[in-house]
Amino acid sequence: MERGDHEAHPGDPSATLTSPPQHMTPEQFREHGRAVIDWIADYWERVETLPVASTVQPGDIRALLPDTAPEHPEPFENLLADLDRVIVPGVTHWQHPGWFAYFPANSSPPSVLADTVSAGLGLIGLLWSASPAVTEVESHVLDWLVELMGLPQHWKTTASGGGVLQGSASDATHVALVAARHRAAQRSGRHAAHTVAYTSAQAHSSVYKGAGVAGFGHVRSIETDERHAMRPDMLRDAVAADASAGLVPAFVGSTIGTTGTTAVDPVRAIAAVAGQYSLWHHVDAAYAGTAMICPEFREHLDGVELVDSYVFNPHKWMMVNFDCSAFYVSERSALTEALSIDPPYLRNAHSDAGNVIDYRNWQVPLGRRFRALKLWWVLRSYGAQGIRQLVRHHVAMAQELAERLRDDPRFEIVAPHPFSLVCFRCRAADATDEAARAADRATDAVAAAVNGSGTAYLTPSQLDGRSIIRVAVGQSRTDREHLDQLWKTISEAAA
Amino acid sequence: MERGDHEAHPGDPSATLTSPPQHMTPEQFREHGRAVIDWIADYWERVETLPVASTVQPGDIRALLPDTAPEHPEPFENLLADLDRVIVPGVTHWQHPGWFAYFPANSSPPSVLADTVSAGLGLIGLLWSASPAVTEVESHVLDWLVELMGLPQHWKTTASGGGVLQGSASDATHVALVAARHRAAQRSGRHAAHTVAYTSAQAHSSVYKGAGVAGFGHVRSIETDERHAMRPDMLRDAVAADASAGLVPAFVGSTIGTTGTTAVDPVRAIAAVAGQYSLWHHVDAAYAGTAMICPEFREHLDGVELVDSYVFNPHKWMMVNFDCSAFYVSERSALTEALSIDPPYLRNAHSDAGNVIDYRNWQVPLGRRFRALKLWWVLRSYGAQGIRQLVRHHVAMAQELAERLRDDPRFEIVAPHPFSLVCFRCRAADATDEAARAADRATDAVAAAVNGSGTAYLTPSQLDGRSIIRVAVGQSRTDREHLDQLWKTISEAAA
Repeated sequence: MERGDHEAHPGDPSATLTSPPQHMTPEQFREHGRAVIDWIADYWERVETLPVASTVQPGDIRALLPDTAPEHPEPFENLLADLDRVIVPGVTHWQHPGWFAYFPANSSPPSVLADTVSAGLGLIGLLWSASPAVTEVESHVLDWLVELMGLPQHWKTTASGGGVLQGSASDATHVALVAARHRAAQRSGRHAAHTVAYTSAQAHSSVYKGAGVAGFGHVRSIETDERHAMRPDMLRDAVAADASAGLVPAFVGSTIGTTGTTAVDPVRAIAAVAGQYSLWHHVDAAYAGTAMICPEFREHLDGVELVDSYVFNPHKWMMVNFDCSAFYVSERSALTEALSIDPPYLRNAHSDAGNVIDYRNWQVPLGRRFRALKLWWVLRSYGAQGIRQLVRHHVAMAQELAERLRDDPRFEIVAPHPFSLVCFRCRAADATDEAARAADRATDAVAAAVNGSGTAYLTPSQLDGRSIIRVAVGQSRTDREHLDQLWKTISEAAA
Repeated sequence: MERGDHEAHPGDPSATLTSPPQHMTPEQFREHGRAVIDWIADYWERVETLPVASTVQPGDIRALLPDTAPEHPEPFENLLADLDRVIVPGVTHWQHPGWFAYFPANSSPPSVLADTVSAGLGLIGLLWSASPAVTEVESHVLDWLVELMGLPQHWKTTASGGGVLQGSASDATHVALVAARHRAAQRSGRHAAHTVAYTSAQAHSSVYKGAGVAGFGHVRSIETDERHAMRPDMLRDAVAADASAGLVPAFVGSTIGTTGTTAVDPVRAIAAVAGQYSLWHHVDAAYAGTAMICPEFREHLDGVELVDSYVFNPHKWMMVNFDCSAFYVSERSALTEALSIDPPYLRNAHSDAGNVIDYRNWQVPLGRRFRALKLWWVLRSYGAQGIRQLVRHHVAMAQELAERLRDDPRFEIVAPHPFSLVCFRCRAADATDEAARAADRATDAVAAAVNGSGTAYLTPSQLDGRSIIRVAVGQSRTDREHLDQLWKTISEAAA
C-alpha cells in the first residue's frame, strides 16, 4: 500500500487539539476508596439484620433508574448513596449467615482485597508474556492445591498435567467436553453428531448443557442407585450398547458431591468403564472438592488418579469469591491440542519456544483476569489450617442438623449427607399416593415459610418426583446460633 | 428412604463441638482495605516510572514462592509486601501510559471501586431471583448503551432483543456460533459437521476458535480487499458454492475494527448475503464499539440493524476494567432456545412465569458476578461526555502519529486508521524481495528497540506476510507527551 493512501479521516479530529477527560485524582481515589471499604465493612456487620431474600417484584429496581444514561459526570457520593437506595433492596444476600440455599458462594476479606488489587493492576494474562506473574502465580498455587487436597501428583504443571482457573465449573466441564469430543474425533474419524456423553441422572445441569453446547449428538442420563450415585453397571451397559450401535462413546462425567444431594459417584468403577472404552473421564467436585483439604474426606477421591480432568470451586466453600474454579487435567496436551490457535499478533519468543504456559490455550476466551491473586491471598490469610477448620465446622453443624431432623418424626432425611448438605422432607402419614402428595405440600410450605421469614434462605427442590428441601450449610458467617434459628423456623413451620 | 438410613458419617465430626476459623475483624478489614487502596493509588502514580514490559524469565516468579502452601495464617502485611517483592517485577503494565500493545484494557478508579463492592457483596446472579438487582441493573444499563451508541432500538431488553454482559468477546462470539448452529440444525435437520461458518481472513482468532469449539464442520476464511475488509462478493461465492455442495451455511462474522488493522467490514453488503442464505450474522466490534458513543463514527455501523448479534468490550476502551463484554442479540429467544436447561433446584415462580430475564440462559456458565455495577459507575462517573472526550482524544493522537509517520520517508502506513490504531512498517528501498526482507528486519528491530526501551510497549505483527508494527493508542493515561516519547523512540530506533 502506497504512502498517502490513508490520509483522510472522516471525523478529522486531528484538526483540533484534544485533551483527556477529568479522571478521579489520586487523593479523590484514596478518599472514595476508604468510603467503599467502610461501606463493605458496614454491610458485612449489618447483613445479618437484613432479610436474606430480596422481596422486590420484577421491574422494581429498573423503576428506580433514570431512563437514559447521564450526559455529565455525577459526584461519587451519589453512586455510594445508590448502593443503599437502589441495590441493597434488590439483593438476595449470599453473604448472610442465614444462607442455606444452592451452595454457598463465600466471599472473605482477603479475597475481596485481592480482587481490588487485581482490578487496580488491570492485567490481562492472555499469554505468559502479557504479565508473567499472572500465569506463574496461578500455576504455582494450583500446584500447591494438589498437595493440599491429596490430588494426584501428575496433575501438577511441573508434571504432565496442570491446573488452570476457569470462571466456573460449567466452563471447566464444557472445555473437558470439547477436549473429549476432539479426542474422540481423532480416534474414530467420526463427527460430534455420533459421539455420546454419559453422566448420572443426578449430575449438574452444566454437564447436560455443556454437552449440548459442545454439539454432542447424544447425552445419556445413567440411572443412580439408592444413594443417588451413578450405577457403573448401567453405565457399562449403555456404553456397550452405543458402541455396538456404531456410535462413539466419548465422555463420562462423574460427580463427587452432586448438587441435588451431594451423592458421590463410584469414580474407580466408572474409571474402569472409561478405560475400557477410551472415554474422557471428567470429575465434577465443584462443591465437595474443598472438603478434600481434610484427609478424612479423601476416601471420596478413590480412583481419581485414573481420570482425565477434575474441577472444584474455591469460589463455593473456600472463601475465594466468585469467579475462581480450579480445573485440572492429567495431560495438558490433550486440552491445548483441542483449544490452541495462533494468530500473528500473539506470537512471541517464549511461547514459540514452548517453555511457558499460555493459559489462553486452556480455555475458550482469550482474555483472563488475575484471579489467582485472591486464591493465593486466601490460602495465606487462613492457612490450610483455617480452611480445614471452616470445613469441619460446617460439616459438624450439618451433621447436628441431620441429627435433629432424624430425631423428629415429622421429617425424614432423603439422602446420605457426607459433607455439609442435608436434604429432607416432611414424612408422609402412610404409603399412599395421597399421603405423599400431602407430605409434598407440607414440605413446600415449610420451604416457603423459611424463605419468607427473612432469617434464612434454603432451596426447595425435587428428588425422585417428590418435594424436598436442601439445606446447604457453608456460609462462612454461619454459626450454631444460625442453625438453631433455622431449626426453630423449620420446626414452627411444620407445626 | 427410611429414617435412620444415613446415620453414620465417616469422619464423625459431630462428636466434637467445632468452631469457625479466625476471620479478619471489621476493624482489621478497614485498616487493610485502606492500605490496599493506598497501594493502588501509589501504583497508579508510579506506574509511569516502571518499565512497561516485565523482563523476568520463565520460572523467575515461581522461584520466589515457597514450595508448599502455608499451614498457618500469615499477617496481611506479608501479602501486601509480596505485591512489590513478587508480583510487580512480573507485571507487564497494561495501565502504563506507554501502553500501545494489543488493544488497551483500561481500568479506572470508579471501575475498580465498583468491582470492590461487587466482590464484597459476593452475589451470584444466576437467576433473576438470586439477586434481582444484578439482572435489572445489567439489562437497564445495556439498554442505556443502545441509545448512547446509536444501536438499533430493537436490541433493547424492552423490545425483542437484549444485551447481556459476557466475560469476553470470545465468549460472546462463541455463544453466537452456538445459537447459529442450533438455528441451522433446526432449519436443515443436518448436523454441525455439515455447517459452515464464514469470516474474513482478518477476523479475530476468537471467531476461528469459537467455530472450532462449537463444532462447526467448516470455517471459511473470506478474502479481504485492499483496505483489509471482507469482500462480500467473495463471501457470496463461497456461500453459494457450499450450498450447492449440500453443506449448510450457518454463520457469518463481520468485524467493525479488526484486531490486525481496525478494518471495517461492509456490514450492510454482508447482511444481504446473510439474509439471502439465512445465516446468523454476528458483528465483532470488540474494540471499535466504544467509539460509537461519538456520532461521527457511526457511519461504520451502517447495516447493523440487519444483524443477529453484536459484541463490543467496555473493558477495552471504555474504562470499565476486564471482564465486561457487552453482547446484544436482535431476538433473545434465538439465544435462549439454544442455551436453556431447567433443573429442579433452579425452578422458581418468576422464572416459570417468564416475566423476568434469567441470564444463565444467555451464556455458557451458570454463575455470574455483578459486573454491571462497574459499567454503571463508569458511565455515571465520566458521563457520556467524558467517554466521548476520551475517545476523541485517543483518535486525535493516533491521527497525529499517523501524520508523523506519513511525513517521514523511512516509514509507510500499511492500512487505513479510522480509529486509534496505526499500523506501519519500515519502507523498503525498492520493490525487490531482498529489499522487502531488509525492511522486515528493520521493522522488527524498531519494535524490539521500542519494547526494550521500557518507556513504551507495542505489538510487532504480520500483514500480508510482511512485518508490521501495531500502535494502539487508547490507554486512559496516555497523553501527547507519551506519544512524543514513543515517536522519539521509534525515530531513533529507525536511524
